[in-house]
Amino acid sequence: MLKFLRVVPLEVAKEMLEKKWRAEPRETILPITEAIGHVNSRNILSKIDVPPFDRATYDGYAVFASDTFGATENSPLELLLTGRIRAGTWPRIKIEPGTCMEISTGAPMPRGSDAVVMAEHAETCCKKVIVYKAVSPGENVVKRGSDIEKGQVVLQRLKQLTQTDIAVLAAAGIKKIRVRRNPKVAIISSGSELLKPGEKLRLGKIYDVNGPALAEAVRACGGEPLYLGITQDRATSIKAAVRKALKVSDIVLLTGGSSVGAGDISPKVIDEMGRPGVIVHGLAIKPGKPTFIAVVQDKPIFGLPGYPVSALMVFDQLVADYLHELSGIPREKRHVVRAKLAARILSARGRRELVTVRLTCKDGETIAEPILKGSGAITSISTADGYIEVPLEREIVGEGEIVDVKLFRSASL
Amino acid sequence: MLKFLRVVPLEVAKEMLEKKWRAEPRETILPITEAIGHVNSRNILSKIDVPPFDRATYDGYAVFASDTFGATENSPLELLLTGRIRAGTWPRIKIEPGTCMEISTGAPMPRGSDAVVMAEHAETCCKKVIVYKAVSPGENVVKRGSDIEKGQVVLQRLKQLTQTDIAVLAAAGIKKIRVRRNPKVAIISSGSELLKPGEKLRLGKIYDVNGPALAEAVRACGGEPLYLGITQDRATSIKAAVRKALKVSDIVLLTGGSSVGAGDISPKVIDEMGRPGVIVHGLAIKPGKPTFIAVVQDKPIFGLPGYPVSALMVFDQLVADYLHELSGIPREKRHVVRAKLAARILSARGRRELVTVRLTCKDGETIAEPILKGSGAITSISTADGYIEVPLEREIVGEGEIVDVKLFRSASL
Repeated sequence: MLKFLRVVPLEVAKEMLEKKWRAEPRETILPITEAIGHVNSRNILSKIDVPPFDRATYDGYAVFASDTFGATENSPLELLLTGRIRAGTWPRIKIEPGTCMEISTGAPMPRGSDAVVMAEHAETCCKKVIVYKAVSPGENVVKRGSDIEKGQVVLQRLKQLTQTDIAVLAAAGIKKIRVRRNPKVAIISSGSELLKPGEKLRLGKIYDVNGPALAEAVRACGGEPLYLGITQDRATSIKAAVRKALKVSDIVLLTGGSSVGAGDISPKVIDEMGRPGVIVHGLAIKPGKPTFIAVVQDKPIFGLPGYPVSALMVFDQLVADYLHELSGIPREKRHVVRAKLAARILSARGRRELVTVRLTCKDGETIAEPILKGSGAITSISTADGYIEVPLEREIVGEGEIVDVKLFRSASL
Repeated sequence: MLKFLRVVPLEVAKEMLEKKWRAEPRETILPITEAIGHVNSRNILSKIDVPPFDRATYDGYAVFASDTFGATENSPLELLLTGRIRAGTWPRIKIEPGTCMEISTGAPMPRGSDAVVMAEHAETCCKKVIVYKAVSPGENVVKRGSDIEKGQVVLQRLKQLTQTDIAVLAAAGIKKIRVRRNPKVAIISSGSELLKPGEKLRLGKIYDVNGPALAEAVRACGGEPLYLGITQDRATSIKAAVRKALKVSDIVLLTGGSSVGAGDISPKVIDEMGRPGVIVHGLAIKPGKPTFIAVVQDKPIFGLPGYPVSALMVFDQLVADYLHELSGIPREKRHVVRAKLAARILSARGRRELVTVRLTCKDGETIAEPILKGSGAITSISTADGYIEVPLEREIVGEGEIVDVKLFRSASL
């Protein structure tokens, strides 16, 4: 027989877990092209000046500025044209006093030149260029290193890398980057009645919704989900699945099979798999009471409720913070929105009750409608936008009260 | 020689384009496992009842409810135990009056039974079950179809599919789904001085930042970016690249090479590639004046500025809406945030000026700081959070004014 549930508040459960296991971020080095979505661990310094050379900002003529002093529309000056520099080429000739070269936008300035006369302020005539406007030193030129200097920080630490960041890193001459290693999270759905989505429906079976839903939740926290599929409600099957999960992942999520009863063998089986084994069995939240937490082979195993929405809410309360900690991806502040409660909620004293809600907009106000369909309903997972928490000591939340709604995903309100 | 720029306001340019090309969404049918991120075109109806059978919601005994009427703690009733039904199996025996079967949570109810006596309200003794509590018909049972009825809408049209939606679809027996076909957007960076990120830096060259940045922007609108890399500033190279792009994509973005001057050959080359060719060359926005729009082979080609931030802003103003229209993914309302301007902006009358800003938070207020670094700076692409628009007719926006900031990406403020 199983030891009975000993229900503890969420915070106590977390403290108990953290005595046995710490969420310690790990690092790895990746080529920048594979680093999108990861969080960089350190400040990144540029290896080169950007631009790597003085560049022309307009099409025109590269000149020695003082050669043009005094040139005006009415008294133009003449310079000798010695060549042409296109963007992407490298000028080998030097600008001697009295000479100039035609230059394209973005092309490197030839040695000796320090300014560009714009095309519309000059005219070519045989080997001569007639300059109608004086330029000062540096005019129409972007200096080497003016965008990024060698050694300058181009990316602050702890930023989740986008494709644009990657492009900036490439521009700064960076090829590899040290990033947080995203935690691998194994997901096992336990239940002999479950089928993996896509399998043929058979008598007595239903499709697993938790696995895919948890995979999505894991990814949103920066984890790398490994959906290992369905395991039967038998000790040998569960043990084999968890053993495999511990081999390939950093954290294991087990969903279903954590209620006390005939189908409840997971906590018992896992407790036998290694020290310290199950450290919490029972949380003072509703839904989520039969949740368990174990540590085996220095890896945490979370036993989440079998109902889809319950599993998601307990994941959000119990597991999500650890994944954010490990991946380095901060929780979006937009995870929480304020809304006006559309109907009264009654709750039991002595446990934290989580109530799923749907968000709507009415007269410019955000309204949270409690969803009455049970957390067992698959449809509630796609209709609920998030949930509200009724604290331990409250028994009632009144209609019209302003509540904080924790979103399951970014709601577009 | 090129025809001169004839600058038109943005809205006029769009009207001119829409006379020659319409953004018409297309559909395709995908297996649900490949449909994540796509938008479903039609309401989806369930093909099965969910759950597909009556299920027990607790471990206990499946009974014919009226057999238990009158049972109490003090005067229990006896039923004959005829077997056991585990979750995932299918019961072959019928419940006859006076009999019952042990049943697990989630298991199918046997024929003849209509309620479950919870395990804690009964006791097994040899082949008999002693029932201590009466149950009413339907108690502790989830009815077939109570979650989703066959034919019920499980997914509204025009929703961008998440992994959870896919799981719900699978649960409803759906295997394939009709979705919006995400527009393929070819991206070509033109410029002889450009290198694809990752290539070895050579004299006179700089890394392309526009291509990857535009790819990311395209993806955010639901487009499928195809970064075709760099093309030289030569008519033959540009023509070859655009021809290839037209073959593999629905929309072509060309960046760089659209200013009037030595390096400016793209509009001319593209105008020769087919009717109607270039229809707009010159927009009354800053930056973005040399932007061009062409239609060739019934596909639009947008020539965006060569500076990274300018390219992104013109993309946002000119191209993004068409991609949202085609992909079906709505523009996030969070695309725009209100902020207080940190410094005065001067602008030229007669064109819409776009000014990049960095967002900060100060005393609870969101502050928009104009970025003074030129739009040619690569770093401005990673430091700018978005931009504000100064309308055609305004010359000044005062310090402290409240402005709408269009975000380049979701800012986490």
